[in-house]
Amino acid sequence: MDKTDIAIIGQGPAGLSAAIYTARAGLKTTVLGCDPKVAGNYDIDNYFGFPESITGQELIELGCKHAQKFGAELRCEKVLSVYQNADGRFDIKTDQSELSSRALILATGVSRVRPGIKNISEYEAKGVSYCVSCDGFFYKNKKVLVLGEGIFAANQALELKNYTPHITICTQGKKEKISDDYNALLQKQNIPVLPGKVKELSGDKFLEKAVFEDGKTMDVDGIFLAMGEASSLDFAYSLGITTRGIFIEADHEQRTNIPGVFAAGDCVGRFLQISVAVGEGAIAGHSAISYLKELSG
Amino acid sequence: MDKTDIAIIGQGPAGLSAAIYTARAGLKTTVLGCDPKVAGNYDIDNYFGFPESITGQELIELGCKHAQKFGAELRCEKVLSVYQNADGRFDIKTDQSELSSRALILATGVSRVRPGIKNISEYEAKGVSYCVSCDGFFYKNKKVLVLGEGIFAANQALELKNYTPHITICTQGKKEKISDDYNALLQKQNIPVLPGKVKELSGDKFLEKAVFEDGKTMDVDGIFLAMGEASSLDFAYSLGITTRGIFIEADHEQRTNIPGVFAAGDCVGRFLQISVAVGEGAIAGHSAISYLKELSG
Repeated sequence: MDKTDIAIIGQGPAGLSAAIYTARAGLKTTVLGCDPKVAGNYDIDNYFGFPESITGQELIELGCKHAQKFGAELRCEKVLSVYQNADGRFDIKTDQSELSSRALILATGVSRVRPGIKNISEYEAKGVSYCVSCDGFFYKNKKVLVLGEGIFAANQALELKNYTPHITICTQGKKEKISDDYNALLQKQNIPVLPGKVKELSGDKFLEKAVFEDGKTMDVDGIFLAMGEASSLDFAYSLGITTRGIFIEADHEQRTNIPGVFAAGDCVGRFLQISVAVGEGAIAGHSAISYLKELSG
Repeated sequence: MDKTDIAIIGQGPAGLSAAIYTARAGLKTTVLGCDPKVAGNYDIDNYFGFPESITGQELIELGCKHAQKFGAELRCEKVLSVYQNADGRFDIKTDQSELSSRALILATGVSRVRPGIKNISEYEAKGVSYCVSCDGFFYKNKKVLVLGEGIFAANQALELKNYTPHITICTQGKKEKISDDYNALLQKQNIPVLPGKVKELSGDKFLEKAVFEDGKTMDVDGIFLAMGEASSLDFAYSLGITTRGIFIEADHEQRTNIPGVFAAGDCVGRFLQISVAVGEGAIAGHSAISYLKELSG
């Protein structure tokens, strides 16, 4: 498994600003993720230093060049899961590789993918879950449905195999985007992928049934949400990091409650602006440097 | 007196980033102060977006152009004092004009001018003061010395006239930089300006004497420090804002404890970097906009 000092998840302004600091400090820095939301073809006109506006795409390209100049490695890989192992390191699995890191900066922005199930909030903590490593245990040999169209959903379904053999993936009406490798793994584990869309849930005290758009129903004990790509929030759940709604709790030094894990940018949910993400990224980088210095004694 | 919606004191990255937001939101924005410390001829190589480094001077010029593009007025004036009047507005006096503002953003950076008096800390709150409007009252008809070489010291001395006629200014070994206008005012008020340097203080429980480098002594009851230019910290003292050492206390929204007053950048004392100042400036601007919206109901 590759080793790094600091893994940064998210290649937007927060992640790249953090990388500029950590790489410049001589720490091995690996930035994961690609195509950040901000990298579009629209004008940014309120980021200090660019009076003639610049497109998101151009700004991200400048940031990538900037981080690489100091030696940061940028890997365009989708992160599927992050766990902390017994010796405190962070084990990161992507769609292409595995990586072990001494410190972690979460900077994926905020995910807004909603499943579009009308009464889903009624069943939260009563069958609806966002995190296999947090809640999988409660579904031993139960029937579970994983909602999601991509490798993140596939990976969550494969993790659920540790708890139950009764797993189905439903793309929730989206086009399936699972890679051939992962489709082969799912087949081997007898995990079917359905194209339908759950529109409603039912059940007396706890979740009992999923109702699909075409009127069909399926008996289920649990639904795991894993739509789109895994976000900082998903990693926060599996690492046991304190959250506040869809945001991650971080202090003035961008530290989360887990030593060695920092968060910056939109996923922290202050003022969702590039300038703020850049400042928080710099602070997160600085805090990660201090953390590793202390670790090394 | 000129009126503005938002007065920003400090023309560095924090102040200009705040101005970009407030001016862009259509609020009348006046940025005071000039020649920020960062505007030098050295390279900045860790501000996201500039992989080929940029000088401080060039970056500030871009920032000024950026803020002006949205209509912010930049005034190269030295702020001498800020008070909040009974209707909640902020009255700002500069070396050239007076201005009344509905909200205030402090962003002057942090002042590092030290008087170089070896036992000064022993007499803090026992004769040594940083703020005429806070402590002048305690020196009614007493003998006071104002340390400082510029207009800020002159203005502090003139304010002390409300409390006592026994005032002397000492430039503390620096070249006197008081303007002709202010020198005329000092003469009219019989306030002498000495070129010496206080090296030590003496007194039993409270300050009694200042000892100069040449060995001479002067009987004094109070010493007011006003070296260099007035900084955010000085304005914080006179506005009753909570401070922490030489820094201003601000929350996640860059609010101080006084409604309508925000602080950003180095004067808040987090991680003293341009990227952080820019992010905090954006947040301070945003918070000031929200504050004025609420005020207007």
